[in-house]
Amino acid sequence: MALARVARSGLRRSGGAFGSYTSEKDVFSEGIYTNKYVLPPRGDESNPTLSIPSAERVIEESDSEYQEPRYPGLEATKPGEKPRVVVIGTGWGACRFLKGLDTTIYDVVCISPRNHMVFTPLLASTCVGTLEFRSVAEPVSRIQSALGNNPNSYFYLASCIGIDSTKHEVYCEPVSEGGLPYEPYQFKVAYDKLVIATGAEPLTFGIKGVKAHAFFLREVNHAQEIRKKLLLNLMLSESPGIGEEEKKRLLHCVVIGGGPTGVEFSGELSDFIIKDVRERYTHVKDYIQVTLIEANEILSSFDVGLRQYATKHLTKSGVSLMRGVVKEVHSEKIVLNDGTVVPYGLLVWSTGVGPSDFVKSLNLPKSHGGRIGVDQWLRVPSVEDVFALGDCAGFLEQTGRPVLPALAQVAEREGKFLVGLFNKIGKQNGGKALSAKDLPLGDPFVYKHLGSMASVGRYKALVDLRQSKDAKGISMAGFVSWLIWRSAYLTRVVSWRNRFYVAVNWATTLVFGRDNSRIG
Amino acid sequence: MALARVARSGLRRSGGAFGSYTSEKDVFSEGIYTNKYVLPPRGDESNPTLSIPSAERVIEESDSEYQEPRYPGLEATKPGEKPRVVVIGTGWGACRFLKGLDTTIYDVVCISPRNHMVFTPLLASTCVGTLEFRSVAEPVSRIQSALGNNPNSYFYLASCIGIDSTKHEVYCEPVSEGGLPYEPYQFKVAYDKLVIATGAEPLTFGIKGVKAHAFFLREVNHAQEIRKKLLLNLMLSESPGIGEEEKKRLLHCVVIGGGPTGVEFSGELSDFIIKDVRERYTHVKDYIQVTLIEANEILSSFDVGLRQYATKHLTKSGVSLMRGVVKEVHSEKIVLNDGTVVPYGLLVWSTGVGPSDFVKSLNLPKSHGGRIGVDQWLRVPSVEDVFALGDCAGFLEQTGRPVLPALAQVAEREGKFLVGLFNKIGKQNGGKALSAKDLPLGDPFVYKHLGSMASVGRYKALVDLRQSKDAKGISMAGFVSWLIWRSAYLTRVVSWRNRFYVAVNWATTLVFGRDNSRIG
Repeated sequence: MALARVARSGLRRSGGAFGSYTSEKDVFSEGIYTNKYVLPPRGDESNPTLSIPSAERVIEESDSEYQEPRYPGLEATKPGEKPRVVVIGTGWGACRFLKGLDTTIYDVVCISPRNHMVFTPLLASTCVGTLEFRSVAEPVSRIQSALGNNPNSYFYLASCIGIDSTKHEVYCEPVSEGGLPYEPYQFKVAYDKLVIATGAEPLTFGIKGVKAHAFFLREVNHAQEIRKKLLLNLMLSESPGIGEEEKKRLLHCVVIGGGPTGVEFSGELSDFIIKDVRERYTHVKDYIQVTLIEANEILSSFDVGLRQYATKHLTKSGVSLMRGVVKEVHSEKIVLNDGTVVPYGLLVWSTGVGPSDFVKSLNLPKSHGGRIGVDQWLRVPSVEDVFALGDCAGFLEQTGRPVLPALAQVAEREGKFLVGLFNKIGKQNGGKALSAKDLPLGDPFVYKHLGSMASVGRYKALVDLRQSKDAKGISMAGFVSWLIWRSAYLTRVVSWRNRFYVAVNWATTLVFGRDNSRIG
Repeated sequence: MALARVARSGLRRSGGAFGSYTSEKDVFSEGIYTNKYVLPPRGDESNPTLSIPSAERVIEESDSEYQEPRYPGLEATKPGEKPRVVVIGTGWGACRFLKGLDTTIYDVVCISPRNHMVFTPLLASTCVGTLEFRSVAEPVSRIQSALGNNPNSYFYLASCIGIDSTKHEVYCEPVSEGGLPYEPYQFKVAYDKLVIATGAEPLTFGIKGVKAHAFFLREVNHAQEIRKKLLLNLMLSESPGIGEEEKKRLLHCVVIGGGPTGVEFSGELSDFIIKDVRERYTHVKDYIQVTLIEANEILSSFDVGLRQYATKHLTKSGVSLMRGVVKEVHSEKIVLNDGTVVPYGLLVWSTGVGPSDFVKSLNLPKSHGGRIGVDQWLRVPSVEDVFALGDCAGFLEQTGRPVLPALAQVAEREGKFLVGLFNKIGKQNGGKALSAKDLPLGDPFVYKHLGSMASVGRYKALVDLRQSKDAKGISMAGFVSWLIWRSAYLTRVVSWRNRFYVAVNWATTLVFGRDNSRIG
């Protein structure tokens, strides 16, 4: 009991922020913000010193003031009630899971600071107005309607800040943007089964200035910001008296990272320049330039022929490819390791992803690369009823399997596998906490790579259908690949509404050109 | 010359911020921000004390350091060059003018902090997702393609901060959002003819807290903010532990002002609640409430029968109508003059518009209500080659005409009239500065009201075709009016692209419901 005791007292320190959130405001006047915390997995109980997050949180049993803290939230389900699945995240993995969950068996609670899934492969297209922002966002309540309709299912717009795997509870802080009279406000949700699908965060390698000056391209609002900046720079460079050097700087779009996102964004940008800037910003069209900087080779996971095709095509479209490693980022220039100074007006950072602070803070076993370690059934071993999938999860070394790449198709396939497992367990009355121990789980998850695609602009794309980097298989590039790219993604778009909108957007872009209104 | 001298020296004080904006950065190290200034119209020269904005700006003729300040910008057009029309603004009036301008006669420069026109009558629909934001925004380069294509025509994303009607110059500060290394950066544009169409600003009557806590509904980003807040409050109120009173507060949407905008927004909100909240936010559907507060009567410009219809219909749709005058606005409640306290989660302010600070700062004759005073040909008397239209302009008292209401149709009609006048003058070689004095102007502008429309939600609208408040004429309300409302606006949407998108949005909303992804 000693450790559970630590847990409670740790939470109790932030008691002011918990408690029933009524209009009796005085209750909260002492609300104190506590940082992320997490409780040790039970497997670590043999080594208590490792698992006490902060020694001063321990309150002596003899402390006469001690009382159970009150957290508002969902208590553990009672016998006779449906088991409750808690899903943290609304990315590819989480949404595929949510979509397939049998809500006649389970109640479901989804927790995420974002109420929609982003159709990430098409996000680059929204930056230049080829697609509208809404066309690539899918509200989670459309993916799983039980979240809005079922009496005991909920979507909470909140960040998960901690997990107590012993008590089977997660702790959350709602996105409130100052909308509540007393903040921070926190609550708990008890789970029977927990699915962690919080994704990853962009890697910045600790390089100074990246977070302050570069744009990432992971969320719809990132794309909105990139678009605003691009249009702003186009118009700003037209202002009278802006010198030649300054014009070149403002209109220099630099992309760091030659993976599919960086290449697709560069391709979209060059399309935008060729078709729209030349027509509608004639005064500055000769100043705009796209540079893609990569430390090694672009599209390193693709077939060598495709890489060469992409390099040739991008260069022909006016994208400068540059080898280099970024040392520092300033507000108007980047400095490379070899001392080269690159002035820029727009900087997009796309060098892959790594574990988020939340995942780092979790006291759970980790895989290679710092992800949450899972076994072949996506279970987190050593704790009961906790599962993880997508970019935040990786196979543990003892499984003998490699950590899978951070791809939408991996996350989606894992979501599909896991929801099948959950529905199966649920039908055998294994849905409740601690009740699936002896059930057979069936076949483990096996990932079969369906291939990779990337568009490179001007109606051209790459399709690499090899199962791995070294395998043999079909790979092709060009217009037919681009048609495959477009139709493949169109069929993958989650709802018919968005499928319709993506098609309509593509058609109108073809007929009318890209929209260039700068909103906000 | 004394006054022109004052003008120059006044500008010179901010010389650091002017000058060629090259990469030689030291030039700007002493950049000083000067506030809005404006030069006296020539008509006031008889009274110099009135027209010196700030006495310390006068520099003695003997000041040996004196030199002409260098401003980057467009110099006056030379003989043989096309005359240059400068249009300030991108609202209904400015865009109608831009659309019709004969660019074989004129070069055109448009200056506005917004690069698109907003189709304001449909803005309320975007807040709840009935329409997409882009469908109501029309990029100005689509309205007048010369702005992007013609060698001497430009669009500048900038605010106009002053006018020198003597020198025929306007002074501007680009929207740069910190994108330039030295700021503020300013430039000038010389004009042959100037069209001021900067619009108006929301009236707050000096009530404390309005600007800090209320949303206006005039721009696309206002609609985006309202939408974000509405969806946030819906999700926040579902968080566990939020008390009953707090839920009610979060979901209380209060609209101040019972004009067409306030009524249409209330109608859209009640539609959203009836159709979408009840279906997708079942946990909190009974807490949401819309209250419309108006000091007098709603839709006071409409026929009495229509007013009664609107009142009955809104009440039936669940909108509470409240008589009251706001005294103070706090972050979570408003206080009325009679002491009533109204807690709210979302507050939209729509109590009409008044002159902007820019218009107030202009030393030009003013009409009743503080607008720029114009004659029947929309000329600003006492200065040459300056015209004003739309919400920022009003007939001078001596014209014997009333100041027209701040309506899109007024501004549009004025834009159409003025561009006709400009094209006519231009054909007679009167386009250049000071060259149209003796040309016949033809018939003056006469406004004929085509009627008013307002939707009230649930497929119902009001159509009032009377020419004025007291005239007789057709007025009707109901579903047919709603069809007229929709089709009338659809035909008024500026481009085919947006006409297509508005129709597509309406159709998909009907089939799939409103989009409720919260982006950003």
